[in-house]
Amino acid sequence: MTTRPSEPLTTQPSEQAPIDGRRARGMRSRAAVLERSVQLASRYGLEGLTIGELAAELGVHKSNVFALFGSKEELQLATLAAARSIFIDRVIAPASSCEEGLPRLAAIGDTWCAYLLSDVFAGGCFLSAASTEMDGRPGPVRDAVAGVMREWIAVLSTNIEAAIRAGDLREDVHPAAMAFRLNALGMAANWQRQLLDDPAGVEHAHATWHAELKRHWPRGR
Amino acid sequence: MTTRPSEPLTTQPSEQAPIDGRRARGMRSRAAVLERSVQLASRYGLEGLTIGELAAELGVHKSNVFALFGSKEELQLATLAAARSIFIDRVIAPASSCEEGLPRLAAIGDTWCAYLLSDVFAGGCFLSAASTEMDGRPGPVRDAVAGVMREWIAVLSTNIEAAIRAGDLREDVHPAAMAFRLNALGMAANWQRQLLDDPAGVEHAHATWHAELKRHWPRGR
Repeated sequence: MTTRPSEPLTTQPSEQAPIDGRRARGMRSRAAVLERSVQLASRYGLEGLTIGELAAELGVHKSNVFALFGSKEELQLATLAAARSIFIDRVIAPASSCEEGLPRLAAIGDTWCAYLLSDVFAGGCFLSAASTEMDGRPGPVRDAVAGVMREWIAVLSTNIEAAIRAGDLREDVHPAAMAFRLNALGMAANWQRQLLDDPAGVEHAHATWHAELKRHWPRGR
Repeated sequence: MTTRPSEPLTTQPSEQAPIDGRRARGMRSRAAVLERSVQLASRYGLEGLTIGELAAELGVHKSNVFALFGSKEELQLATLAAARSIFIDRVIAPASSCEEGLPRLAAIGDTWCAYLLSDVFAGGCFLSAASTEMDGRPGPVRDAVAGVMREWIAVLSTNIEAAIRAGDLREDVHPAAMAFRLNALGMAANWQRQLLDDPAGVEHAHATWHAELKRHWPRGR
């Protein structure tokens, strides 16, 4: 999985080594193609993504796209990595200025709901769609999607654990169970907005996210 | 949408008029093909379903399948209708012996979780997968998927409203918000089991479903 960015989901990308002009142009082309491919894939799925259709969409020859990615699988993996970076930029990074634990968990509830309402992706949350699309298709792309989603669940769990240690959540909170409940809210909100054209799910998710945290505050606080 | 069954999601199919022998054989073939197509579609998606691949899978000529369905869209709609019937048989019907309202809501929590663990569909919950697959693809199939999911949400809301009327849930419960939260649990449990190979989500969903109902019992009960 050479195309997956190496920075953890919780931090900003690290500084890159200097690169020459040709490589810089190639990376710009690659970034431009990926900008389009994440939108196409959010609407038609990672399997619906082909080098031919992407080239047609961009008005370039198939060989240009092929030169950048080499295979459909590489394109899928690079598209997933691009979607992951967008998720980091929109959901994780803005919350990272808040202290780890309860403050950051509360902030993620806000940034995630804002992201779901912002139509960053033409077809709704890319990662949610890729999850259900790929779960029955074993292979490197499925493994990469599962890897990104495990990182996301780990972000939630890590902050829940930090909140328990800090005394901001009760000691009997089960981190994996709470992470499951919080994740469920955003997935369902995305579903309700995308399939049923009903943004009320995002409101329900946002209210429930904060109620879930508040309900598990230590007694007497 | 001629292929969608007409029975409501809350009841068993109504009695059919008598049919002749040739029509009966045709319906048996159709049922046999649909049995395979729901499995294929649960794994590869409704868009991944083609008459050619289905024929190859069944070891028959493409024209035989074409004679039964006529077009990919008809096949997709019939496959969705078959999946809907399976969901009724596994989740709705077993809970229908319980009284409408809180008893039936509690029973649906049990039957839904049992269904998610039972691997009825090779690729996990068909309706959940079809939801995220089709939400970015306008057309009759997307509308049919949305229709089935609206029926499901209505089953939850109707029982929540009945429970409030019966005094089994507090009057300040917002039916649509609670239906959203209950639905979110099963969707996320299916996701966690299918993508992350982790059945713990179903346990979290089951426990949270019953805790959600209990938390909204009228005070002092």
